[in-house]
Amino acid sequence: MGQGYVLTEMTWPEVKEALETVRLAVIPLGAHEQHGPHMTESCDAVLAERMGRLLVAELHPLALLTPTVSMGVSSHHLHFPGTISLEPDTLIAVLRDMLRSLQGHGISKFLVLNAHGGNQATLGVAADKLTRELGVEFYYAKTTAAAKDVMDESIASKPYGHSCEREVSEALYLAPELVREAQLEPGAIQPPGRWSRLRPGNPLQGFYYYEEMTANGCIGDATRASRELGERLVRTALQRLAQAVRDVLDS
Amino acid sequence: MGQGYVLTEMTWPEVKEALETVRLAVIPLGAHEQHGPHMTESCDAVLAERMGRLLVAELHPLALLTPTVSMGVSSHHLHFPGTISLEPDTLIAVLRDMLRSLQGHGISKFLVLNAHGGNQATLGVAADKLTRELGVEFYYAKTTAAAKDVMDESIASKPYGHSCEREVSEALYLAPELVREAQLEPGAIQPPGRWSRLRPGNPLQGFYYYEEMTANGCIGDATRASRELGERLVRTALQRLAQAVRDVLDS
Amino acid sequence: MGQGYVLTEMTWPEVKEALETVRLAVIPLGAHEQHGPHMTESCDAVLAERMGRLLVAELHPLALLTPTVSMGVSSHHLHFPGTISLEPDTLIAVLRDMLRSLQGHGISKFLVLNAHGGNQATLGVAADKLTRELGVEFYYAKTTAAAKDVMDESIASKPYGHSCEREVSEALYLAPELVREAQLEPGAIQPPGRWSRLRPGNPLQGFYYYEEMTANGCIGDATRASRELGERLVRTALQRLAQAVRDVLDS
Amino acid sequence: MGQGYVLTEMTWPEVKEALETVRLAVIPLGAHEQHGPHMTESCDAVLAERMGRLLVAELHPLALLTPTVSMGVSSHHLHFPGTISLEPDTLIAVLRDMLRSLQGHGISKFLVLNAHGGNQATLGVAADKLTRELGVEFYYAKTTAAAKDVMDESIASKPYGHSCEREVSEALYLAPELVREAQLEPGAIQPPGRWSRLRPGNPLQGFYYYEEMTANGCIGDATRASRELGERLVRTALQRLAQAVRDVLDS
Amino acid sequence: MGQGYVLTEMTWPEVKEALETVRLAVIPLGAHEQHGPHMTESCDAVLAERMGRLLVAELHPLALLTPTVSMGVSSHHLHFPGTISLEPDTLIAVLRDMLRSLQGHGISKFLVLNAHGGNQATLGVAADKLTRELGVEFYYAKTTAAAKDVMDESIASKPYGHSCEREVSEALYLAPELVREAQLEPGAIQPPGRWSRLRPGNPLQGFYYYEEMTANGCIGDATRASRELGERLVRTALQRLAQAVRDVLDS
Amino acid sequence: MGQGYVLTEMTWPEVKEALETVRLAVIPLGAHEQHGPHMTESCDAVLAERMGRLLVAELHPLALLTPTVSMGVSSHHLHFPGTISLEPDTLIAVLRDMLRSLQGHGISKFLVLNAHGGNQATLGVAADKLTRELGVEFYYAKTTAAAKDVMDESIASKPYGHSCEREVSEALYLAPELVREAQLEPGAIQPPGRWSRLRPGNPLQGFYYYEEMTANGCIGDATRASRELGERLVRTALQRLAQAVRDVLDS
Repeated sequence: MGQGYVLTEMTWPEVKEALETVRLAVIPLGAHEQHGPHMTESCDAVLAERMGRLLVAELHPLALLTPTVSMGVSSHHLHFPGTISLEPDTLIAVLRDMLRSLQGHGISKFLVLNAHGGNQATLGVAADKLTRELGVEFYYAKTTAAAKDVMDESIASKPYGHSCEREVSEALYLAPELVREAQLEPGAIQPPGRWSRLRPGNPLQGFYYYEEMTANGCIGDATRASRELGERLVRTALQRLAQAVRDVLDS
Repeated sequence: MGQGYVLTEMTWPEVKEALETVRLAVIPLGAHEQHGPHMTESCDAVLAERMGRLLVAELHPLALLTPTVSMGVSSHHLHFPGTISLEPDTLIAVLRDMLRSLQGHGISKFLVLNAHGGNQATLGVAADKLTRELGVEFYYAKTTAAAKDVMDESIASKPYGHSCEREVSEALYLAPELVREAQLEPGAIQPPGRWSRLRPGNPLQGFYYYEEMTANGCIGDATRASRELGERLVRTALQRLAQAVRDVLDS
Repeated sequence: MGQGYVLTEMTWPEVKEALETVRLAVIPLGAHEQHGPHMTESCDAVLAERMGRLLVAELHPLALLTPTVSMGVSSHHLHFPGTISLEPDTLIAVLRDMLRSLQGHGISKFLVLNAHGGNQATLGVAADKLTRELGVEFYYAKTTAAAKDVMDESIASKPYGHSCEREVSEALYLAPELVREAQLEPGAIQPPGRWSRLRPGNPLQGFYYYEEMTANGCIGDATRASRELGERLVRTALQRLAQAVRDVLDS
Repeated sequence: MGQGYVLTEMTWPEVKEALETVRLAVIPLGAHEQHGPHMTESCDAVLAERMGRLLVAELHPLALLTPTVSMGVSSHHLHFPGTISLEPDTLIAVLRDMLRSLQGHGISKFLVLNAHGGNQATLGVAADKLTRELGVEFYYAKTTAAAKDVMDESIASKPYGHSCEREVSEALYLAPELVREAQLEPGAIQPPGRWSRLRPGNPLQGFYYYEEMTANGCIGDATRASRELGERLVRTALQRLAQAVRDVLDS
Repeated sequence: MGQGYVLTEMTWPEVKEALETVRLAVIPLGAHEQHGPHMTESCDAVLAERMGRLLVAELHPLALLTPTVSMGVSSHHLHFPGTISLEPDTLIAVLRDMLRSLQGHGISKFLVLNAHGGNQATLGVAADKLTRELGVEFYYAKTTAAAKDVMDESIASKPYGHSCEREVSEALYLAPELVREAQLEPGAIQPPGRWSRLRPGNPLQGFYYYEEMTANGCIGDATRASRELGERLVRTALQRLAQAVRDVLDS
Repeated sequence: MGQGYVLTEMTWPEVKEALETVRLAVIPLGAHEQHGPHMTESCDAVLAERMGRLLVAELHPLALLTPTVSMGVSSHHLHFPGTISLEPDTLIAVLRDMLRSLQGHGISKFLVLNAHGGNQATLGVAADKLTRELGVEFYYAKTTAAAKDVMDESIASKPYGHSCEREVSEALYLAPELVREAQLEPGAIQPPGRWSRLRPGNPLQGFYYYEEMTANGCIGDATRASRELGERLVRTALQRLAQAVRDVLDS
């Protein structure tokens, strides 16, 4: 890490020079929300930023990492102590202001690198609105979703999805300080109910609070996580993301 | 059709009586957008309403069909003549006003029955906002997505997705007046480019206009559509949706 | 009916061709609200659309009918079962999005054909805002107000104004399925009170709920309605509206 | 003048005492806009305030006069030098803040006394929104519209409507400093055109700028104005308004 | 007073002529709020307007006085009878509309002449937003803050700040009708508490209601006020303000 | 550092336990903006967070540190490469969402610890709005403004204010990685002009871009900075801030 352009660590003359080659700004987007008893609440923000650092290093000198948007849309988690959630409109306003500021510096292509599933619908709306409103190219990606096939074949505990085998593995590789290894627990899933009828793959979708689904806030079995799996997911996704970015920059 | 409660066709004393048993309002949501040379632009609105009539009949006397929201978020299609698109915020405002009005009549559970994929991200945001803001239960569903397995096994022309084998089949069963049978054409897909790198399953997501992807506005082969396939998709989805609604009403 | 351009029933290539002559979009605007025991709640939306079809036929090939805005500002009626009301800001947002979309297709003149008195103040504000904001020509008209003189001389039951001799007559001509002929009742007017001091012609204006004024939701005597009167009102208004549109298109 | 409660001229202990009897706040609403070569641009604001002083004196000790809202919706006049126009949303926001502040002091009934026709549509929307949002009684009235019959029989120059026989007469009685008597001119009406097809009584309504209609900004013949006519209009309207207010306070 | 351009007292042809030399609009901004037992609630609005008249006379023919914004952000005073407060967003909306209207008349430089401290934060935000949004020069000034040194050396009763020696002195010179000379009282300061820890110069800032700090609504000793001090403050500030305006117009 | 409650580094069960004693949330607020050639652009965000860590440690177990708001209102700096600025409304929206989320966890007192002067006006408005809207206690403080007297007596290079002797000194103590010691430069102040007439202490205030005032983006002489001065400023301010917080918590 370190050889990519990281805006928070640069002076303005350094930025000025970097802008001669930069064609894309990468915006790490996280969340501040409960991650069960074994991960700290900044988990998504830290993972997005670490992944972002790797990505801009990979794309150097074409990309620049912006400050991290460290809170996101976490309304499902609001009943767990400490969770802070932005309204979808607030998140879009933050992104709009960032894009407009960076447009002023000559950047017109943006990738929101998102570590939190709860932000995806808002990003879909943001892509629609901001592309047309500002005349920019707006891309977004879940940090390691590009390695979905590796997840499908490697993750033993299903379903997974929050502070789980996948997420803890990624943290063990990217930011082990996020993990309380002594507290690792499997998800304490609640009996089927309204929540289970709204899970992906069911006819209906809808809003439910996380405690309806899991007593400890986890979905999946974090005790099966490993640094090795994390490394594989991160490295695979990173290569694919970098290639995908190069492709759209060229197209 | 006809034995369900359809609000547009009722007087207020009839509504008053219906409200003694009604526990859910079904809101048909469509779009007004191009559907290639062989479907009329109201396609999604009409299909949503027809499906909604079947669903409230199935659920009678527990459900009531509201007026159809006949325009939606169709920004991807704006460059094709005739398309009209609501901003995501406008669509949410319309839904909010409908829910608040109906809450005043004692209804607190809502299902938006959506026929247009471009509305889904906005509905995700709406579910998050309106559930918490109004204290209601807010569900949403794509009209026939509950029959995804039938689509996977029955549809020959892939990828499909817009004015295609699936959609024309559904229309032939539900509303054949939407189809110009003499004009049926397969999608005129453009060469791979930026658009193809942003299709589902790729690492990046982002906004693109439909004409980048298809010259005639279609994705899939409408010439393979049949009323029989439409009937199977609609009937399968309908049974599953109705059961899913009963389940959440009971839970 | 049918020889005018009706956007909901056209494919995009057909719209493209129509746009070569079209100079005005006609937007039918209704409401979803109680109309007493003898009219269904979609009354205003259906009448606006039917009238719109006649008008674009009359103006063919200069005009095109957009999808109907089927809900409007009906706050006065919210205490009657089934009424759904949009906030004035929501209605303006819907109109703005429609106008902007249609501007993209080359149309810059618009006529909102409104069947519901409760929308008029909002349309006045919309005309002011949208004309200046979008640089369009924005016209609006009550569907049959152009035949005010015929109403004054032909309508026997006064005051009239809601689900009354006039409105039921128009429905009997344009859309008889809206009328429950067996249930026709005169308005059940309440004793004079705050509401009567706020009726048109009094020094003060202000908001009141409809049930303060009429127990069954009607103002006027629907039992005196006739298809003949409806035809005369509609045909007179239609000729005058069409001429008025031609005049502003020429000026 | 002077024996009514005028908030701008009171200290807080005086207001506190007045609130023991006050049941209605009267809000004068004007405009800042051109009034031709013979009236100053604050005309509507000054007339509303003067009329308001008379009205609260008449209603003493039941009513209290608030500060004047001295600018309104004057978009039609924006092309004449000096005109300042508030957006409709801004005017509603100002009224909302005034009502909420005064609700905190125990007042729940409000009369907007409006001297400018261009504000009426916005007041209609405000009445609808603010009544329901704040739970208040919201009334509005044009300052001398209650004397419409007197106008119809006494005003010689028709049509009238802006800086005309009526308005100059009222000013000569209420605030003669607004009038440049040496500059009095009849309206310099433009040839018929789009504007004349949108005047009241025509099938279509719509927005047009005042200079399309009148070269000097006036409609009507100010040279026929008299203090006597002004006095009659003002005194008649005042008595009727005061009675109407007493009636709604009692109902 | 009187030889400056005062928009409220001009006709449009007079404004048209004035605009040939005018380079700056001066917007008086006040408040409607309690000023203790010895000043009327319109105090700030009246002082701002009087000061504005003097300033445009001083700057004649370069400046023009707009209508006074007579209410401002007075939330701290809302618990005293009669206070009316605008939300900060409402005040900014009013200013935006004024600036946009006046831009249409060719003015691009604005000075908000503010008599009320509670408006300052909002004006800071307005300066930031409106400058960039409208491309104007936006200046603001407290009416007599330019004479801060004279205050420091001449005012005996400290702390001062509301309906005090300074403010009553200014009123005795500019608008003696605002003062109830028989009721003059020193501020009835409350015992130290949360409010005193939030006064200027303390580590923390924050919102508190005025009655926490002063029982009669005054800060400072109005009994020591004099017309002479008022004249000195006003005349000193006026000269400095006028010079400062000339300097920025020249730079 | 480390013995205070830092929300980003805690799990939800740890937060739950902490909430038993916590009475105040400290929200670090920074900016992302140019700090001349010798400080990185995240300077204000990092200093706010470091200072926040010290403060919650000092107040332990009464206070909890929230995630840092790392971008703020930096419009003055937008023309220097890399600066990102939030609109004032966006910053208020972010703070509102944070406060509402934390209210749900039982916290009702908040201190925004702000390292950037450009945020102060927005915080003034936020304090006014959010206090009344949410019913919370909302405090804000510049990080080291409580040591103003130490600055006045210790700082040699005046004026100072941005990436200067004071700020670099604080960074050398709190976060030396922000400083490029080899690049330290005094401010490259521009000749007097419009900007100098708008500096604090002048009669007029208004918006100007930073490059009008300083070519390298600095105000003050960073070459005179020292870790010792930074330590004194930070430690003095910290003790005073902590005491001020304890005082308001007790009052």
